[in-house]
Amino acid sequence: MFSTEVKKRVRYGETDKMGYLYYGKYANLYEIGRVEMLRDLDLPYVKIEDEMGIMLPVLSVEAKYLKPAYYDDELTIKSILREMPSKLIAVHVEIFNGKMELIHKALVKLFFIDMKTNKRISAPSVLTDKLKPFF
Amino acid sequence: MFSTEVKKRVRYGETDKMGYLYYGKYANLYEIGRVEMLRDLDLPYVKIEDEMGIMLPVLSVEAKYLKPAYYDDELTIKSILREMPSKLIAVHVEIFNGKMELIHKALVKLFFIDMKTNKRISAPSVLTDKLKPFF
Amino acid sequence: MFSTEVKKRVRYGETDKMGYLYYGKYANLYEIGRVEMLRDLDLPYVKIEDEMGIMLPVLSVEAKYLKPAYYDDELTIKSILREMPSKLIAVHVEIFNGKMELIHKALVKLFFIDMKTNKRISAPSVLTDKLKPFF
Amino acid sequence: MFSTEVKKRVRYGETDKMGYLYYGKYANLYEIGRVEMLRDLDLPYVKIEDEMGIMLPVLSVEAKYLKPAYYDDELTIKSILREMPSKLIAVHVEIFNGKMELIHKALVKLFFIDMKTNKRISAPSVLTDKLKPFF
Repeated sequence: MFSTEVKKRVRYGETDKMGYLYYGKYANLYEIGRVEMLRDLDLPYVKIEDEMGIMLPVLSVEAKYLKPAYYDDELTIKSILREMPSKLIAVHVEIFNGKMELIHKALVKLFFIDMKTNKRISAPSVLTDKLKPFF
Repeated sequence: MFSTEVKKRVRYGETDKMGYLYYGKYANLYEIGRVEMLRDLDLPYVKIEDEMGIMLPVLSVEAKYLKPAYYDDELTIKSILREMPSKLIAVHVEIFNGKMELIHKALVKLFFIDMKTNKRISAPSVLTDKLKPFF
Repeated sequence: MFSTEVKKRVRYGETDKMGYLYYGKYANLYEIGRVEMLRDLDLPYVKIEDEMGIMLPVLSVEAKYLKPAYYDDELTIKSILREMPSKLIAVHVEIFNGKMELIHKALVKLFFIDMKTNKRISAPSVLTDKLKPFF
Repeated sequence: MFSTEVKKRVRYGETDKMGYLYYGKYANLYEIGRVEMLRDLDLPYVKIEDEMGIMLPVLSVEAKYLKPAYYDDELTIKSILREMPSKLIAVHVEIFNGKMELIHKALVKLFFIDMKTNKRISAPSVLTDKLKPFF
């Protein structure tokens, strides 16, 4: 297992007239979480795209909204890999509010595209090598 | 069954550096779809909140990304109710690109909150009455 | 002078906890306005980028917020060219609410970049030719 | 004079198909800057709204886009008060890229609304008292 935590404050422009973090903004939180997880592995996503020519489009999202998040709350986004990536990378996301109550859960699956051929590939060894010690 | 279709063009600010409609923007499309579905039933969501004092927070989203959407594509958002709403309303969403290829599927479940008591309620009869002829 | 009008409804995800259209979303409205203005000239922006290899980054924005816009309001975005574009294109934007009250004014200046050389160029003749009858 | 700096990374969902930070996202950066400036004064904006019943809608924005910002750049948002707020608060914003090049300048003017009466008021003394030592 490998996991990373990152903090993110709810901004005014992310709230809606209910006073909640808009439900459509959680996908941006998943993105922040997984990008910081890759940075923790010393593999910034910007390098995966620009130097390795690989991009990771999203295949599916399953999300459960447990409690609302409010303006100015400092959320904790926890991104967890429970399995070694192969054809897919499955990121489990848990989001906690300022009181560390679990308010949201998601499972985001992404795949790997070789940007030269525009074809699906398996997880690159540079990623799986970094992850081996954790599995 | 009851369903509605609405068109929505992909705007520059909704694309990302891959050149695709950003994956996090699809939730905005589901919102447009279900709000126009309610308007088609002569029940604008703004009235449900302001006049009936009921709000519909999202409980869960399951989404499958089948093909990317591109800048300036005119998408068709189809919102489908397959079951009469009761404790929940389950909206099946199908999104088609300009060539009418299915590019995205989602299931969005919402619940009903009485804004005065802040408690969950069942689907209001004003909604279920409008839907009866279709089920 | 050349001008175009386009309608745009305020969506839930665009409101903030004040209940207003978030101030940061107006730039998206300017974009919709100017892109539809170009489409009215039979010059879709997607063709300017993809076929002519020209892009139009924004140089400056001056905006005045006169009245708030509310959820589900159907706004009218009026985009006006008061001068023939040359080194710049200056788009005057006027936004009206559902009662056709002026709620927002902006001036957006954009310039032209040749995407091959990455250098600034003047307004392409394909654009100025289309606009000549109006000036 | 009073000023604050805060860092903000450019996220994928904030880029557009040019590969730049979308021009419409800068308003979100101004918001982050001024909210963190208020927090530095020990006056979190959430308290101004919830405890003092005052809100600060935006009156005008003047923005100059000097250079693009790119994906994953860590931007520095500098928010500067050059004058003591009275009827207005004028926030000068300077945004720098990772190489500390100035890429964007803006002037954002906000006013003060008493949320009970919905009328304009002057800057509350709790704010001006905190700022006096700096002017």
